[in-house]
Amino acid sequence: MNQHYKNLVQRLEEIAHLNGVMSTLGWDQEVMMPIGASESRAKQIAALAGIIHERTTDPALGDCLHELHETSNTSDWGAIERCNIREALRNYEMEVRIPKQLVQEIAELSSRGQGIWVAARQDNKFSDFAPVLKRFLKLKVEWAQCVLPNLQPYDANIDLFERGTTTAMITPIFERLKLELIPLIHAIQGHSHQPDTSFLRGKFEKEKQELLARKLSREIGFDFDRGRMDVSVHPFCGGGHPTDVRITTRYSESNFIESLYSIIHETGHALYEQGRPHQLGDLPVTESSTMGIHESQSLFWERMIAQSKSFCMHYFQAFREAFSDNLQAVTAEEFYRAINNCKPDFIRVEADEVTYPLHVILRYEIERGLFDGSVAVDDLPQVWNELMQKYLGIKPPTDTLGVLQDSHWSGGAFGYFPSYTLGALYACQFYQALLKEQPDTERNVAVGYFAPIKHWLNEKIHRHGKLYSPQEIVQNVTGESLNPDYFITYLKTKYREIYQLT
Amino acid sequence: MNQHYKNLVQRLEEIAHLNGVMSTLGWDQEVMMPIGASESRAKQIAALAGIIHERTTDPALGDCLHELHETSNTSDWGAIERCNIREALRNYEMEVRIPKQLVQEIAELSSRGQGIWVAARQDNKFSDFAPVLKRFLKLKVEWAQCVLPNLQPYDANIDLFERGTTTAMITPIFERLKLELIPLIHAIQGHSHQPDTSFLRGKFEKEKQELLARKLSREIGFDFDRGRMDVSVHPFCGGGHPTDVRITTRYSESNFIESLYSIIHETGHALYEQGRPHQLGDLPVTESSTMGIHESQSLFWERMIAQSKSFCMHYFQAFREAFSDNLQAVTAEEFYRAINNCKPDFIRVEADEVTYPLHVILRYEIERGLFDGSVAVDDLPQVWNELMQKYLGIKPPTDTLGVLQDSHWSGGAFGYFPSYTLGALYACQFYQALLKEQPDTERNVAVGYFAPIKHWLNEKIHRHGKLYSPQEIVQNVTGESLNPDYFITYLKTKYREIYQLT
Repeated sequence: MNQHYKNLVQRLEEIAHLNGVMSTLGWDQEVMMPIGASESRAKQIAALAGIIHERTTDPALGDCLHELHETSNTSDWGAIERCNIREALRNYEMEVRIPKQLVQEIAELSSRGQGIWVAARQDNKFSDFAPVLKRFLKLKVEWAQCVLPNLQPYDANIDLFERGTTTAMITPIFERLKLELIPLIHAIQGHSHQPDTSFLRGKFEKEKQELLARKLSREIGFDFDRGRMDVSVHPFCGGGHPTDVRITTRYSESNFIESLYSIIHETGHALYEQGRPHQLGDLPVTESSTMGIHESQSLFWERMIAQSKSFCMHYFQAFREAFSDNLQAVTAEEFYRAINNCKPDFIRVEADEVTYPLHVILRYEIERGLFDGSVAVDDLPQVWNELMQKYLGIKPPTDTLGVLQDSHWSGGAFGYFPSYTLGALYACQFYQALLKEQPDTERNVAVGYFAPIKHWLNEKIHRHGKLYSPQEIVQNVTGESLNPDYFITYLKTKYREIYQLT
Repeated sequence: MNQHYKNLVQRLEEIAHLNGVMSTLGWDQEVMMPIGASESRAKQIAALAGIIHERTTDPALGDCLHELHETSNTSDWGAIERCNIREALRNYEMEVRIPKQLVQEIAELSSRGQGIWVAARQDNKFSDFAPVLKRFLKLKVEWAQCVLPNLQPYDANIDLFERGTTTAMITPIFERLKLELIPLIHAIQGHSHQPDTSFLRGKFEKEKQELLARKLSREIGFDFDRGRMDVSVHPFCGGGHPTDVRITTRYSESNFIESLYSIIHETGHALYEQGRPHQLGDLPVTESSTMGIHESQSLFWERMIAQSKSFCMHYFQAFREAFSDNLQAVTAEEFYRAINNCKPDFIRVEADEVTYPLHVILRYEIERGLFDGSVAVDDLPQVWNELMQKYLGIKPPTDTLGVLQDSHWSGGAFGYFPSYTLGALYACQFYQALLKEQPDTERNVAVGYFAPIKHWLNEKIHRHGKLYSPQEIVQNVTGESLNPDYFITYLKTKYREIYQLT
């Protein structure tokens, strides 16, 4: 092997190992760390982050990469090596292109912005948060011009989360979704046939919820020898390596659906992480693809599988045994309808699969407007509420339940929101491809036989790591490019049946 | 502040923060890490260790230290700064004086030696382990000559664990202990009045043991806002910072004394860690003193406090409520006698406080003999068994229960064992000093009022960090140098009463 490439591998693996340590620290902080350790931990993380920054911007790494880049499209290299060089070069250039002062300003504002957002939310006072948002917009435009000067600033921000995807691609898809989903939601809302969800409220013992969460996660395919399940304030999937994947959930005694479906969601992320091709070394090619593809994996299991009728039919008996007080008089069919209840509400993270895209589209349109100057920060509460009224027919009573609800903007994460809905579209399109290749899927789910599904996702998506772009993944897995028809047809068919719409 | 000193502080704090990360990783590995992650974790630890080594041997650190050292005894510096410079210089020189090849050979043999020791123990075959021991002796002599050339090789090895302590100081103390303890053990053994310990065997629910462990640890003074308690195969006290101290124990359903007293022991270590003067920065002066002083803190709580009659009187009711099946017909007095049962046995870690020192002395004499050439590795099983017979009147039936029982030598940790007994002597001498200053101590313990005791240890020992040598600590706290009389008198008085010896 080429000496430069060997050198590159050594450098990249060291960085990957240090990032693995950082991830484990992050998990520890959310799950294990005693409250009094926050200050000392912040210093430890800063020290490690400093070392990682030093390594990732080491000019010797740059020299090595440029040397390799000049030969990387020749026949010397296979696809794996080309991917490692390409990704490492992109990361290196993104790191070194940002002036140190800009890095520091963004970091400082992220940290300060978070506190200001929390307070503004508490006080229901958007005007306190507006200056942070204005400053962040300026910094993020500057950042985009440094890092990805060939892209429009908002596209550059999207690119960070969903590589290769631009507003030019997203806008027509989102327009289509609005056109189809707004009438569907109207029809659902107008219908007299609303599912009974009363039995989902009550008292559900945490111990039983945890036993169910572990059972479902294991049966879906989470490998507990290469991972853990714990409790944290916000559910997440973390851990330091594909052999050490850590998922969390939280248990509310008054709602078992939340913990159950959040653990299925995180298990979807975890299967992707556990399925990464780490035998190729701790190198960029083994990393997961974009946020949207990652979200497609969690939503695949949460929505396409676990919110399906077959899944409910299979597991309802176990749910009823665990919570017999509440579910004794309920049928699996009624349970299926209840968990798929569609109802416009103010909060994105609690939204159902039909209304969720409109929450995302609203944010997308606002972000796009902020970047192109057609929307002013000071007008956001009004713009937000008008769009909520237009898309979901409801108006938030406060900004806390409206424009201030999400943490993303307080950390400068513009361009992130579209990933959620792109993930939902990918998931649905992948599922249709699976049905074509494995027509028995619904019957398999109905008996809890998930192995062929997991294997299919492993083979089609997980084992390729970062080898392909999200666009290539969709093409390779489904034989066509991203097509919102699958998602629209899926929702229409499912919800017409549930709500008996004509 | 001097620019060199500022530079030093920055470098030392970065190293301390990285070491804190390493500690947290070590804890995670023992307590949380899934089994499949061992290989990836080893690589992450190696990467971090490499960075720490790079930082601790950075010639720029050396230059800065030498610059400061030349002025460090002048009036420019207070005691704290002098301590930081002195300790940092010692660490730096110890790191850079060892040839890289020797570092690697020791690391490699430690890792390989561990596996060979486990196998030899399983096969009860000392001869398989002997070559490792011979090689380690050679390497550790070489190491000593590089690192502390002014000391005899065995003294250099002791110095690593118990700074400033040499065989010339230890031997007379250990001779005295033999002279006094061997007859005491004989007298105890020969006596017809043996305590009833049958009620300590039975079935004790783990949940109840854990509740008791948490209660005792909290009441003694462990701050759960700056620490955690978990389960691991071997109990230990770890964590990454005085604000993040993590203790562990293990629960056996057939023995609740083991988990209870191990958690008290680890709480003693933890109080020391939580009491370190971290407000002075993450610098050498805030570190704990030697292994022996650390052990004195765990043994102080385990033996001087928790094995006392007052402690048993106070807590017995809680123990009886938790385990009423076993303890219903037992009195606090009988419980006290049972947990202080003295009986020579083969295994050091299970030994009582009277026989324990003889286990240590035996190992000390063997190590000393190995280093001065008067004992040959191949003769160890025979030497071991002869000394066991001589000191404790028993002969191990196998080498697994004899010379192969401890892991220390498989990692090259010669000179460690004396710390255990020095710790016991320190603990006892500290306790007598406490009694002089706080004559109400026994009455306080009898009502579970530990705050003045913890406060006294905080003030006298913990808050000084590494400012004083162990010899200075003993002198400052007790007004005299280490004096084994306290320990001997304590044991004689206590065990004459328990066994009603004349």
